[in-house]
Amino acid sequence: MEYKYLPEIKSPADVKKIPEEKLPELISEIREELIKTVSENGGHLASNLGVVELSVALHRVFNSPNDKIIWDVGHQCYVHKLLTGRFDDFETIRCPGGLSGFTRRYESEHDIMSGGHSSVALSAAYGIAAANKIKHKKDYTIAVVGDGAFTGGMVYEALNNAGRAGTGTRLIVILNDNEMSISKNVGALARYFATIRANPGYFKMKARTESAINRIPFVGKPLAKGIFNLKTHIKNLIYNSTMFEDLGFRYMGPIDGHNVNQLCAALEAAVEANYPVLLHINTVKGKGYEFAESKPDVFHGISAFDLVSGEPVFSGTSFSEQMGQFMINAAQKDKRICCITAAMSLGTGLGSFAEKFPDRFFDVGIAEQHAVTFGAGLSAGGMLPVFAVYSTFLQRAYDQIIHDCAMQKLKVVFAIDRAGFVGADGESHHGIFDAAFLNTVPDITVMSPASFAELNSCFVKALYHTEGPVAVRYPRGIEPELPEDFVNSFGDFDVYGNENSEIAIVTYGRCFSEACKAQKELHEKGIDSFVVKLNTIKPINDEAVRKVLGCRNVYFFEEGQRFGGIGETYCDKLYKYSYKGKVKITAVNGVFPTQNSVSGLLKAYKLDKDGMVKVICEDKTGE
Amino acid sequence: MEYKYLPEIKSPADVKKIPEEKLPELISEIREELIKTVSENGGHLASNLGVVELSVALHRVFNSPNDKIIWDVGHQCYVHKLLTGRFDDFETIRCPGGLSGFTRRYESEHDIMSGGHSSVALSAAYGIAAANKIKHKKDYTIAVVGDGAFTGGMVYEALNNAGRAGTGTRLIVILNDNEMSISKNVGALARYFATIRANPGYFKMKARTESAINRIPFVGKPLAKGIFNLKTHIKNLIYNSTMFEDLGFRYMGPIDGHNVNQLCAALEAAVEANYPVLLHINTVKGKGYEFAESKPDVFHGISAFDLVSGEPVFSGTSFSEQMGQFMINAAQKDKRICCITAAMSLGTGLGSFAEKFPDRFFDVGIAEQHAVTFGAGLSAGGMLPVFAVYSTFLQRAYDQIIHDCAMQKLKVVFAIDRAGFVGADGESHHGIFDAAFLNTVPDITVMSPASFAELNSCFVKALYHTEGPVAVRYPRGIEPELPEDFVNSFGDFDVYGNENSEIAIVTYGRCFSEACKAQKELHEKGIDSFVVKLNTIKPINDEAVRKVLGCRNVYFFEEGQRFGGIGETYCDKLYKYSYKGKVKITAVNGVFPTQNSVSGLLKAYKLDKDGMVKVICEDKTGE
Repeated sequence: MEYKYLPEIKSPADVKKIPEEKLPELISEIREELIKTVSENGGHLASNLGVVELSVALHRVFNSPNDKIIWDVGHQCYVHKLLTGRFDDFETIRCPGGLSGFTRRYESEHDIMSGGHSSVALSAAYGIAAANKIKHKKDYTIAVVGDGAFTGGMVYEALNNAGRAGTGTRLIVILNDNEMSISKNVGALARYFATIRANPGYFKMKARTESAINRIPFVGKPLAKGIFNLKTHIKNLIYNSTMFEDLGFRYMGPIDGHNVNQLCAALEAAVEANYPVLLHINTVKGKGYEFAESKPDVFHGISAFDLVSGEPVFSGTSFSEQMGQFMINAAQKDKRICCITAAMSLGTGLGSFAEKFPDRFFDVGIAEQHAVTFGAGLSAGGMLPVFAVYSTFLQRAYDQIIHDCAMQKLKVVFAIDRAGFVGADGESHHGIFDAAFLNTVPDITVMSPASFAELNSCFVKALYHTEGPVAVRYPRGIEPELPEDFVNSFGDFDVYGNENSEIAIVTYGRCFSEACKAQKELHEKGIDSFVVKLNTIKPINDEAVRKVLGCRNVYFFEEGQRFGGIGETYCDKLYKYSYKGKVKITAVNGVFPTQNSVSGLLKAYKLDKDGMVKVICEDKTGE
Repeated sequence: MEYKYLPEIKSPADVKKIPEEKLPELISEIREELIKTVSENGGHLASNLGVVELSVALHRVFNSPNDKIIWDVGHQCYVHKLLTGRFDDFETIRCPGGLSGFTRRYESEHDIMSGGHSSVALSAAYGIAAANKIKHKKDYTIAVVGDGAFTGGMVYEALNNAGRAGTGTRLIVILNDNEMSISKNVGALARYFATIRANPGYFKMKARTESAINRIPFVGKPLAKGIFNLKTHIKNLIYNSTMFEDLGFRYMGPIDGHNVNQLCAALEAAVEANYPVLLHINTVKGKGYEFAESKPDVFHGISAFDLVSGEPVFSGTSFSEQMGQFMINAAQKDKRICCITAAMSLGTGLGSFAEKFPDRFFDVGIAEQHAVTFGAGLSAGGMLPVFAVYSTFLQRAYDQIIHDCAMQKLKVVFAIDRAGFVGADGESHHGIFDAAFLNTVPDITVMSPASFAELNSCFVKALYHTEGPVAVRYPRGIEPELPEDFVNSFGDFDVYGNENSEIAIVTYGRCFSEACKAQKELHEKGIDSFVVKLNTIKPINDEAVRKVLGCRNVYFFEEGQRFGGIGETYCDKLYKYSYKGKVKITAVNGVFPTQNSVSGLLKAYKLDKDGMVKVICEDKTGE
């Protein structure tokens, strides 16, 4: 189909030029473009289909980038991108060098903050609104936050802080209530939102009730007094009747988030307030695409899929599924095992566990901090808790790992998924910090398996043979290829190749597969080497260091941040043993890698077979 | 005065044996003991004076340790300690080898979680309550949380999660509302709590209102219908009228927290619920000690003080005050400078700044995560935000530093106070992680001044000559002594002593003072050495590495965690330059140092002059 309106939109000014009666056509074009592009590139579909009308309304009422729209998480920013001059590049979304699947400050002046992690938009928005207030600027700042993100504590920290800012703070929080975040929304808040949602127009109700109260007749003295007190009470209650009002915001809603005219009217009313406003809108995740409406969790973030059947183009057994299966088997035998997820039961492979063991499965919402300390509590209560979490999101709970697990000497098992590069989600999502930040934590054990068999063995060790907190970290996706002649000892480390070689390659996790290939290729080039594979990366077994002391060169390859990483700790140990040879660490050197395929990223950072061979050969040539 | 009751209490069972009418005497003895001991040892006074009756009531109604009482933060646990068999050791509180000033799991079976950081108790308590529910145990779990801690987002994450747990979850949250946390409580929540507080008995009001509604006469059809709807609305509103009920808890309160009998009755009523209950109690911080009641913020955590005058025994200009003064001067010249604190305006030295620049000062509550992202927002809005925070609490915002500052390339200045050992607060409070965890963050600059002059210079660089996020970290307390012949270049690093010596001592921050003394003492012993002082610890200037390449020995001393620390990064760089000598890092080797004086800790970890000399001489002898 030829689009009539969408290609003409070069900036938000063009959104305002479209006659009101033509908006449904624009909206329909946007939906078509979203479905087509995501079916090809993969990405976040359901969330974007849910905010088409909202995005259009925002860009009609406000003047971006003077007025600043901040999309929490940012996975629902595709429509915003289409409306801010990025239609022509939209087919490149999530591709290497293309548009990001999230807001990115370097991509457009309309992307106010780079997104990725949840529940932060309101904090940033209040910062900007506070700056505007100090500067006496009249511009508005708008944070769009999903109901799921409201399960994250930062939102309350920000509401509490901003709720007292009062008149002159031009801040609008849009609660985009689609009745679920990434997984089905759990927790008391979901029920609370449902109560408000069921209320036919809160503002109207308020007016009606007040009028009814004023019509209550006064019939006799004693009752009159009772009624008088009652009126006061009722008024107090009514004026403080949503949590948001308790926290100092003006509350508006809930209104239909798929009615552009209503949305525009509500936004204009919010502007009039000149006061922090919370606008509650109801939307349907996946709106307008049957498969996405019926399975919004599956279509939240998705790989390329077939447009007609709605089925993914590819699948294979992943580390996540393997972990989920392991936990089911383990929990059948051991009644102490509990699994925790922070709104990622599907992504982390815990879907079946949740069905089989509902009493021992806890979805705590997008609340990694609470998840960790809650796990510590379960542990103190005699259970064996396993928190399955993406590496990048565990960053949220760094202090809780230190203070509530390690310092308490309590065992919580961290099943860290998406450790290493994640691909198209880009810089906000790579799991390239966990090895480094866990390295700083006393008394934690960290394992980094390279195969499913090793994953299982690591979890057995983690559950039954390790004291204190323990992490098992594994990459996104399928099992990497390992050489047939490699035998995993399931000990702290393994050696592959001839230990008497002068060149040692030291690595862990997914990179081990590449290292073995490199070792083979080097051998074919006449360069002998061997690979030391660290299975336990913290603490590093001293034997795994002694193995390389006879080598002329040690090459450490790390799919993670170099500074504070495992490679540096290995260097320290080499000095401890007075190693006099050469050492070179190849890792992510203090940068944020942008979106690319995982193989593309391994290549870019010289962590694939070719990169490793190159690093080693260059060094040899340079001698 | 001779105590009559307190010395007889060897366990909570003894608390139950005291006749009700004698409780006031026990309570008075406890207050006297608190004031006497804290005046000698320093510690948290006001918070403990506020929970005397609560602690007594809890140990009368519940059976610790089967029922588990978790004190949030834990600085209000002194009375709990007195009632759980620790009266005889109480005089050792906060002393090296003595009782901790916080709950410590290793100290008593009645200390369920080790405390220190805020807003975590409810998460841990719900974990234990959930474990009990799984095991069909009838024991109760009680979390005592101050109103200040409710400004931390984790509390909401936990309320949201636990609020849906429902019947059979034996969990009681006690909101200890003393109208302030550490500094005066700010934010909308404080106002909200005040509203509830002003309400004369929420439960009673509810009953009265219901009865009044039922007495509304029906006078004529149209009104009757209006009234009918009104009744429904009112009932809905009434039954959902506190935020805690919105989040699924049964709410009780507010009740007088200094009336033991009322407290016991309320706790017994809460037990009957067999459901998550939030019990709201009002207490007076500092209750019973005039000076503490009138200046509860000063008496929150205090050094030894004079019992009669209430004045501290010692004071001197600290790095905190120096920072506060710098910011006042800077803000007078530069209207973009804003200061942020997370409920620590006095502790971080921002008291005067807050008075002079109320529009550019933000106390966000105990909400470090929000503080950082709010700072990022201010920065995106064109301001120059400075977040002054204790090192140990910044751990909470690790992800926000990565995701909302570094990844955005936004300048937020972190004024990191209490970097290094803090002394008597012990393992939960030492600032021994910040150098290591910031080391992992891309594009951040970290400086570690050793004197006031250098502190000022670092802030000038941070504000005006550095891109992206930047941290200036400095120790607790007064300026350390530096040699008269040391001239600070205010560059990335400095060298003290003869660069041609065979021994290099590399260090940063407070340890530099000790290193200079060690250098002198070594010289007197006939051992020549020089000191490399890293002023900027991230990134490390390569020149600061090249300086030591000619040395036979390099000794790195680090007042922080070794793993992932600056010393290891320095090692990596030494290998880069093919350094063939010996390297030894002396640091905190992956442990949690317990309470001690700062000098005692420096000594214990061989980071003082004597320790350094010993490390170097031992090595020399061993050759």
